[in-house]
Amino acid sequence: MQGQSQQQAYDRGITIFSPDGRLYQVEYAREAVKRGTASVGLRTPDGVVLAANRQVSSPLMERSSVEKIHKADEHIGVASAGHVADARQLVDLARRRAQGEQLRYGQEVGVETLTRSITDHIQEYTQTGGARPFGVALLVGGIDEGEPKLFETDPSGTDYEWKAAAIGGDRDTIQGYLEDHYREDLDVDGGIELAVSALSEPEEEVVDAEAVDVATITTDDESFHSVEESRLESILAEIDTEETDE
Amino acid sequence: MQGQSQQQAYDRGITIFSPDGRLYQVEYAREAVKRGTASVGLRTPDGVVLAANRQVSSPLMERSSVEKIHKADEHIGVASAGHVADARQLVDLARRRAQGEQLRYGQEVGVETLTRSITDHIQEYTQTGGARPFGVALLVGGIDEGEPKLFETDPSGTDYEWKAAAIGGDRDTIQGYLEDHYREDLDVDGGIELAVSALSEPEEEVVDAEAVDVATITTDDESFHSVEESRLESILAEIDTEETDE
Amino acid sequence: MQGQSQQQAYDRGITIFSPDGRLYQVEYAREAVKRGTASVGLRTPDGVVLAANRQVSSPLMERSSVEKIHKADEHIGVASAGHVADARQLVDLARRRAQGEQLRYGQEVGVETLTRSITDHIQEYTQTGGARPFGVALLVGGIDEGEPKLFETDPSGTDYEWKAAAIGGDRDTIQGYLEDHYREDLDVDGGIELAVSALSEPEEEVVDAEAVDVATITTDDESFHSVEESRLESILAEIDTEETDE
Amino acid sequence: MQGQSQQQAYDRGITIFSPDGRLYQVEYAREAVKRGTASVGLRTPDGVVLAANRQVSSPLMERSSVEKIHKADEHIGVASAGHVADARQLVDLARRRAQGEQLRYGQEVGVETLTRSITDHIQEYTQTGGARPFGVALLVGGIDEGEPKLFETDPSGTDYEWKAAAIGGDRDTIQGYLEDHYREDLDVDGGIELAVSALSEPEEEVVDAEAVDVATITTDDESFHSVEESRLESILAEIDTEETDE
Amino acid sequence: MQGQSQQQAYDRGITIFSPDGRLYQVEYAREAVKRGTASVGLRTPDGVVLAANRQVSSPLMERSSVEKIHKADEHIGVASAGHVADARQLVDLARRRAQGEQLRYGQEVGVETLTRSITDHIQEYTQTGGARPFGVALLVGGIDEGEPKLFETDPSGTDYEWKAAAIGGDRDTIQGYLEDHYREDLDVDGGIELAVSALSEPEEEVVDAEAVDVATITTDDESFHSVEESRLESILAEIDTEETDE
Amino acid sequence: MQGQSQQQAYDRGITIFSPDGRLYQVEYAREAVKRGTASVGLRTPDGVVLAANRQVSSPLMERSSVEKIHKADEHIGVASAGHVADARQLVDLARRRAQGEQLRYGQEVGVETLTRSITDHIQEYTQTGGARPFGVALLVGGIDEGEPKLFETDPSGTDYEWKAAAIGGDRDTIQGYLEDHYREDLDVDGGIELAVSALSEPEEEVVDAEAVDVATITTDDESFHSVEESRLESILAEIDTEETDE
Amino acid sequence: MQGQSQQQAYDRGITIFSPDGRLYQVEYAREAVKRGTASVGLRTPDGVVLAANRQVSSPLMERSSVEKIHKADEHIGVASAGHVADARQLVDLARRRAQGEQLRYGQEVGVETLTRSITDHIQEYTQTGGARPFGVALLVGGIDEGEPKLFETDPSGTDYEWKAAAIGGDRDTIQGYLEDHYREDLDVDGGIELAVSALSEPEEEVVDAEAVDVATITTDDESFHSVEESRLESILAEIDTEETDE
Repeated sequence: MQGQSQQQAYDRGITIFSPDGRLYQVEYAREAVKRGTASVGLRTPDGVVLAANRQVSSPLMERSSVEKIHKADEHIGVASAGHVADARQLVDLARRRAQGEQLRYGQEVGVETLTRSITDHIQEYTQTGGARPFGVALLVGGIDEGEPKLFETDPSGTDYEWKAAAIGGDRDTIQGYLEDHYREDLDVDGGIELAVSALSEPEEEVVDAEAVDVATITTDDESFHSVEESRLESILAEIDTEETDE
Repeated sequence: MQGQSQQQAYDRGITIFSPDGRLYQVEYAREAVKRGTASVGLRTPDGVVLAANRQVSSPLMERSSVEKIHKADEHIGVASAGHVADARQLVDLARRRAQGEQLRYGQEVGVETLTRSITDHIQEYTQTGGARPFGVALLVGGIDEGEPKLFETDPSGTDYEWKAAAIGGDRDTIQGYLEDHYREDLDVDGGIELAVSALSEPEEEVVDAEAVDVATITTDDESFHSVEESRLESILAEIDTEETDE
Repeated sequence: MQGQSQQQAYDRGITIFSPDGRLYQVEYAREAVKRGTASVGLRTPDGVVLAANRQVSSPLMERSSVEKIHKADEHIGVASAGHVADARQLVDLARRRAQGEQLRYGQEVGVETLTRSITDHIQEYTQTGGARPFGVALLVGGIDEGEPKLFETDPSGTDYEWKAAAIGGDRDTIQGYLEDHYREDLDVDGGIELAVSALSEPEEEVVDAEAVDVATITTDDESFHSVEESRLESILAEIDTEETDE
Repeated sequence: MQGQSQQQAYDRGITIFSPDGRLYQVEYAREAVKRGTASVGLRTPDGVVLAANRQVSSPLMERSSVEKIHKADEHIGVASAGHVADARQLVDLARRRAQGEQLRYGQEVGVETLTRSITDHIQEYTQTGGARPFGVALLVGGIDEGEPKLFETDPSGTDYEWKAAAIGGDRDTIQGYLEDHYREDLDVDGGIELAVSALSEPEEEVVDAEAVDVATITTDDESFHSVEESRLESILAEIDTEETDE
Repeated sequence: MQGQSQQQAYDRGITIFSPDGRLYQVEYAREAVKRGTASVGLRTPDGVVLAANRQVSSPLMERSSVEKIHKADEHIGVASAGHVADARQLVDLARRRAQGEQLRYGQEVGVETLTRSITDHIQEYTQTGGARPFGVALLVGGIDEGEPKLFETDPSGTDYEWKAAAIGGDRDTIQGYLEDHYREDLDVDGGIELAVSALSEPEEEVVDAEAVDVATITTDDESFHSVEESRLESILAEIDTEETDE
Repeated sequence: MQGQSQQQAYDRGITIFSPDGRLYQVEYAREAVKRGTASVGLRTPDGVVLAANRQVSSPLMERSSVEKIHKADEHIGVASAGHVADARQLVDLARRRAQGEQLRYGQEVGVETLTRSITDHIQEYTQTGGARPFGVALLVGGIDEGEPKLFETDPSGTDYEWKAAAIGGDRDTIQGYLEDHYREDLDVDGGIELAVSALSEPEEEVVDAEAVDVATITTDDESFHSVEESRLESILAEIDTEETDE
Repeated sequence: MQGQSQQQAYDRGITIFSPDGRLYQVEYAREAVKRGTASVGLRTPDGVVLAANRQVSSPLMERSSVEKIHKADEHIGVASAGHVADARQLVDLARRRAQGEQLRYGQEVGVETLTRSITDHIQEYTQTGGARPFGVALLVGGIDEGEPKLFETDPSGTDYEWKAAAIGGDRDTIQGYLEDHYREDLDVDGGIELAVSALSEPEEEVVDAEAVDVATITTDDESFHSVEESRLESILAEIDTEETDE
């Protein structure tokens, strides 16, 4: 009873501290992230892999319109989980910042720099009144001076660097799978396989090639590429075989 | 009891997160959409069909004034469901954006670009304080570089791409009918028939030609056309026959 | 009990959605309209008739100061119901817009264009915080390119086109009377008679000539004219006769 | 119980609608008017009479400082009832508008035009947040193109035209007296007598000449004049005689 | 119980009307005035007298720093009661206005004009949101074209003209004493004696010369003068004698 | 119970009046002052003494960083009690004002002028919404045209002039000690002794030289000087002796 | 019960005073600091040592991305505890200020000056409405004119100078350890050992070299240096040995 009425108090106003030092609106925004389908990102010596579930609520919906993975710059991709419209705002922000860097300095924005610029924007919405936090988490992956890099942004405006990370619904299960199976010597192809396997873990069956969106940014051409469905199908087939083998 | 008082808490302020990560004001705006009469849109290889119920509360009201389908640009139409005055604001926004694109770049705005510009506007009203979300959903259909395209905007500011979609009251029933009867090889005429049949489904009788507003944008002239009542009548007659046949 | 406390919640803040998708402040503004005395408008092939009850609270009050029918432009009249001071604001807005059109484009504003400009203004007051909706409904009648036109604006910012419509107190009774007695082939004189009869319906006796304000905009000179009391008296006499006849 | 808690809800925020379509803050402002002492205005063929009670709370207070009747322009007077400081704001506004008209157009402002300009200002304070309504009613009297005119402004921003009207405390009693005794053929002298008699009605004894403030604007010189105490005394003596006669 | 909870409702927001037409925040500001020590002002044919109690909370406090009587302009003094810091704001305002008048028009500001300029400022704080009313009353005294004048400003923004008036704590007792003892033919010396006697009334013993601050503005030099302690002492001695005589 | 809920009402909004005319937020800010350690100021014919307790919460904290006594201008010092960060804002304000005076007029700001400029700033925060009052009291001491002067500012924005005053925790005890022991003929050395003795009073033992911060502004060089620890130690030794003697 | 409901009252609005003179939002922000892992800073004659725990929630997270110690300027480092995104804002502010000083004055900013500039910013967020306080504490260390200096900033905007200080979770335990073991004659190497020992205290086992982030700013080159993991390992080995010895 006490817990409930206390909690309500924090819901009414802007993003303020609770007596135990938490920002409830930020924690609720984290719940909004969990309500979204999962996305996964991982880093290999030769690139970054981003993968996302894309579920459609009707067979008549175009799967391609469920955008979970976005190209932010030539060499940077972003995977999102949570409130879709919020994600679009942050991706648009990332694109504008990347273009601005190109225009002002004639060079590509760094992955970490771009991530910071996003999390600064997110933080501002948790401190200044009259607006709610962003209900979205992002995985920002790309190549920084030849090095594959992967960052996460959370609704508090914190950023973390990862070797491999999951965001969104079933995060714990998928992250556990990543911790068990990630190896530093994976290449991008192995990374794609791991990412898709991880996304398949919660349902305990391999996802369809069309239900997953995968992109890579590799060190060779430092460019964002969507992974074609045919390539995904052959990888998924392989997973199936392995699982049957186990 | 708990549910109710908790819910009230979210109603008082601006659009903020609930403990389970939802934006109640946005969900209530979705209810406003459901209170409106239904609209349907679908895509065929040769065009896009938009259709809407237009009910009048009195025989003295001019049906033509119940505008549910709007021309946004020469090659783009918009069907709406929900709060009528809100819809008009978004349609006006769409028209200004389309004109602006024409003026600035001397070319027609893309259907997806225009949809994004609308959903960005909608999203803003869900995050910044001092305003309520838009209580309306739209179907935006048109021709993009020769390809028929159909998008939906929802009150959260999310956009979806569809082959065929329903918005507004009885959405579930109508969408179910579309899922059962939509075929990729329908032409625009078949699409009109399907759209009107779908709108007729909840009442289980074929709607009157005058009670339905239909428009098409076809690939041949890439122009928005309202379907005349006479053409509708002959299509409806056909539906009647078919239904009798079944 | 639940209903009441829930309702209170929506009263406190700005115009926001209720869980069932309604805007309470807008619905309450509709109640403000019902608190006003009725106005009636109707369209005939040769013009538009606007009529309004004007009740005075004391015999010493000048009836002419109870302005319910206003000239908005040379060829457009407005009848109002509801909060009097709010109505004046909207009529003033209409006049400024009509003048602006004349100044900028050297031509008369269309009836529909002017109505939209009013309803856009009304809608804004239902979405942006810090202000209440307008507690008034209007009937906007005039001649558009030779055609008589009649529109209604409601407190949500929606506009409807009518052949004949009532707003304000006893709307349902009066509208029912209009539905029963309106004929497409009425001329303006017949329209005046019908309008006054309809206004007389709730009290079940013919109103006094001085207690009703009637204006016409006819296709011949496309100008707003107040109907003189003498002409009204002869029409009312006729009604009395007819009623006695029935 | 229900009524009370509901009422409280409307008191907390800005001026918003109640479920039955009323603006409580405006109705409370009307109560503020009733808390003030009464003022009376009336129109005769040869001029306008304004009269007001001026009560002092101590014999040491200068009666002349209880200003209830104000000269707004050479040919326009204003009598007020209600919140004194609010009245001063509106009278100052009226004076500035009258001067502005003189400066811009080189002519005197019309009585109705000036009244409208006051009620527009009042209405604004009932719709826009962050301010309360004006707790004052005014009687605005003067000569418009040779014609005596009398208007009332109320806290909602509505204006009414009157032959004779009372505002403030005991309004109903005084207005009733006016309705019983007003005659169209009264001259200004008779009007002064009627106004003072009406003000004397609630207490059932004739007020003192010094306790009443009377002004006239007559058609002959179209100028505002305060009525001197000596003239008032002789009029009051006459009233006394008449009353004794009855 | 009802009264209390209703009252609370008005405390929460800005200065708004109560159901009976009162502005609670203004009435509470009047309570703030009563919490201050009293000030007295009175007018004689040859000048104005302002007097104030100045109590100190410790013998180490400089009495001179308890400023209750202020010189606003060469010929105008102000006595205050209530919230000290608020009084300083209003006195500063008065000084700036007086100087502005001098600079712009090369003449001294009138006492009434200056008072109005203060009460206009006070009124604004009772109507516009986001600020509380001033918790202070002032007595503004001076010479207007050779005539001694005395005005009071109250927290609602109303001004009153007085022959003799008290503000602050024990106002009623002191005002009663003034009403009993004020005579039109008093000269300034008699006025000082009366003012100090009145201030002494609530405690029923003559105040110390050092505990009272007295200033005069006389018609001869039209200048503000503080009354020296020696002069006060001889006056107080006289009062003592008289009281003993009675 | 009643008291508590009433009190809560005032806590919620901005700084507003309570029914008995108090500003609760200002009174709570006074409590914030009492939570701070005490400061003392006193005036002698040859200067001003400011003294403050500086307690540290850990032996590793630098005592010098507990700044309670600040140099505001060459000839003015400020001692503070209460919310430390708020004090710093006011001291910074004082410094900027002092510098501005120097720059604009080429002369040193007066002690009273500077104090007023601080209290005006404090008052503003008690009247305008959207900010809380300052939770700090200051003692402002310095030389005005050769005269030692000492002022206090309190959270309401009132200023007082003192011969000797204490602010902060245990104010009453320390002020009582000052009242008992202050003599007009003390010199600065005696003043330091008295100030430190007063600060020692609540704990009933002489404070350590390092735990007290003392500064003087003397008439000879009109400059702010911190009193060195060695000088303090010899003074404290003397106090000890005296106390033993008593 | 009373305590709880009272507390809620303060949570709803902006940062305001409680009846006992505390700022709850500031105190809750202090709880946010305690929720963070600890950081330690200490000063030796030859430099400043900053050390922080960096815990990762998954083995796949890059420890280096858990930034607790930041270079603010060439000669100044900052260690943080609490809300990570808030800390980043303050560190960015510090960097901009340091750069600004360099640009404007061509010299390095002082450690105390920089700290003040941060705490002024923090204070502003505790007084002005519409924003919450910063939920972070910082230790700012560097070389000021050859002297090692260490400051703490807390969420109220207060700054303290320290010889050795801990912030964040387990602050009391770690500060106690520092008080027991800090010696004025420690050199930087001894300081590193002490800092890491102190951080190890709450868990009662020596932390891993990779789980601690240590930086020094020494008087010889006045530059910020991160301490390499190898050097940390040898120091930690030494601690282990000592502890075993004890």
